Amino acid sequence: LVRIAVDAMGGDHSPQVVVDGVNMLEQSEGIEVLLVGDPEAIDKCAPDGLRAEVVKSTQVVEGHDSPSFALKKKPDSSIAVGVNLVKQGRADGFVSMGNTGAVMASALFTWDRLPGISRPALTIMVPTHKQPTLLIDVGACVDCKPMQLVQFAIMGSVYAEEALGRTNPRVGLLSIGTEASKGNELVAETRPIMEAAPINFIGNVEGNQLSSGEVDVAVCDGFVGNSLLKFGEGLVETIFGFLFQYAKEEEIELDDHVKSMLWKSMARMDYTETGGAQLLGLQGACLIGHGRSSSKAVCNAIRTMANTTLHHVNDRIVQSLQKLEEQTN
Amino acid sequence: LVRIAVDAMGGDHSPQVVVDGVNMLEQSEGIEVLLVGDPEAIDKCAPDGLRAEVVKSTQVVEGHDSPSFALKKKPDSSIAVGVNLVKQGRADGFVSMGNTGAVMASALFTWDRLPGISRPALTIMVPTHKQPTLLIDVGACVDCKPMQLVQFAIMGSVYAEEALGRTNPRVGLLSIGTEASKGNELVAETRPIMEAAPINFIGNVEGNQLSSGEVDVAVCDGFVGNSLLKFGEGLVETIFGFLFQYAKEEEIELDDHVKSMLWKSMARMDYTETGGAQLLGLQGACLIGHGRSSSKAVCNAIRTMANTTLHHVNDRIVQSLQKLEEQTN
Repeated sequence: LVRIAVDAMGGDHSPQVVVDGVNMLEQSEGIEVLLVGDPEAIDKCAPDGLRAEVVKSTQVVEGHDSPSFALKKKPDSSIAVGVNLVKQGRADGFVSMGNTGAVMASALFTWDRLPGISRPALTIMVPTHKQPTLLIDVGACVDCKPMQLVQFAIMGSVYAEEALGRTNPRVGLLSIGTEASKGNELVAETRPIMEAAPINFIGNVEGNQLSSGEVDVAVCDGFVGNSLLKFGEGLVETIFGFLFQYAKEEEIELDDHVKSMLWKSMARMDYTETGGAQLLGLQGACLIGHGRSSSKAVCNAIRTMANTTLHHVNDRIVQSLQKLEEQTN
Repeated sequence: LVRIAVDAMGGDHSPQVVVDGVNMLEQSEGIEVLLVGDPEAIDKCAPDGLRAEVVKSTQVVEGHDSPSFALKKKPDSSIAVGVNLVKQGRADGFVSMGNTGAVMASALFTWDRLPGISRPALTIMVPTHKQPTLLIDVGACVDCKPMQLVQFAIMGSVYAEEALGRTNPRVGLLSIGTEASKGNELVAETRPIMEAAPINFIGNVEGNQLSSGEVDVAVCDGFVGNSLLKFGEGLVETIFGFLFQYAKEEEIELDDHVKSMLWKSMARMDYTETGGAQLLGLQGACLIGHGRSSSKAVCNAIRTMANTTLHHVNDRIVQSLQKLEEQTN
């Protein structure tokens, strides 16, 4: 049995969407949920019963709250309480559709780092025609040293294998050319250490390969990763904006089939549909989904988190780091 | 009168598309073209006459040739000859739909830097619902110092004003949050110099703002810019791939209107439709379009290049740099 703390108050349509997502879990999956939030509000959303134990919290972090404000002024938020449940050992992991920065700050503040980890990292899944690509880091560590990127590669590789079920995950180092000679100083210094690390390193990959499905894990510093993530979000909006704009301007009738095709494609570009953002490198695990997540996305996030904890991702990360240390010493 | 050298041999459908693009220019525009390439091949593409003088070259740089190979082994390529026409003062600027790396290498090798410029930079236009955003640098300078980013900002600002017709262009520094406190070390060190520079600096911008139309010029180092560029290309392919895949899987009939809507939107996402890549900071000007460019795109690229030279972009860049130097000394 695995026990997951879930933030009932995070997301655009909370707590309803979260409650519905929790209720979609099957008894046979062996996942026990601690649903953190306002008990009354939760009750109202579950007239036919709730497959979870409710843990009370009295404050809610809003989307516009800064991480430091949330940390200082809202110590009894659903995020803070959920993160603490993991710290206390009452839950194995935490899932939230709330404020990404606030969840990250709370986890970084509350949980210790894994032994050997220099800096934690945040991951997202980039959609491709095959399996999505795990991109690490997308904003936890903006100025990185080579060894930190190698640690990200190890964390990403273990996570891809254990939580996402990839066999011998292909790990690439993001650069601006696949040749070893191309890239910036950080890439040049990182590559030889990457080649020696206990991972399936396939070399440097370029930006377009993130969405080609050729690589399971792509590693970059948090400045580059966060820029890519936000640029991608803007680009997807722009494209679908153009599509609907042309349809309107030229008075093209979009029948329901075509509309459904557009919406489905747009949903596939939303990284939250494929697993949300995972913070790795801490003694605790958390998965942060998008505020717009559907109940199905909430349910999937809880399942992914259960896989993360079941397969002892953190133990394996620590083992791999020890192996790397032995090799490089 | 302005004289532009044009590479007849570059691009997927050369020389036909290039010849057609040149022939679309109106006599009244006052642009004289020196078309560089194989005279026989060019002649065959222009049975009804050519609005250009042909300059002979005997070699062609292929798309897969490395920049250093092209530079060493193909000294009489259409790229090398075109770049030399500018060096000799016979042309005011060079336009090519060929191998971007080879054009860049040839220009960097042949042309001197502008006085005061530490490193040249490559720009592209990012599509938005309003006017496209000029992104500088996308790969010419991968490890940047703060002063280099400020020089990019000045070059981008002058180019946006003179060649693209933007009034008092808004310049942003790419970061991972709009607050001054967010970003990496490079951003933190660059921002105060940016604020003192003779440009309309509006502060830090995030990746999604590149496609929002809120900013005319966005500045980043060439590693980040090149990663964004390639990631964007991959993402656009993925999205349209999903659209057509869903249509096929669910047997949705796409009528001609819907198809045209899809193709038009896809074309708008192609940065070459909005001007190609411009290399700035050298005593010479060149514009590099996509290999897939249409004859219309070729024609527009020649017009943009004519604007660049007509408005003395380089003179104004040098003046602004002197102003910055006076301010910071």
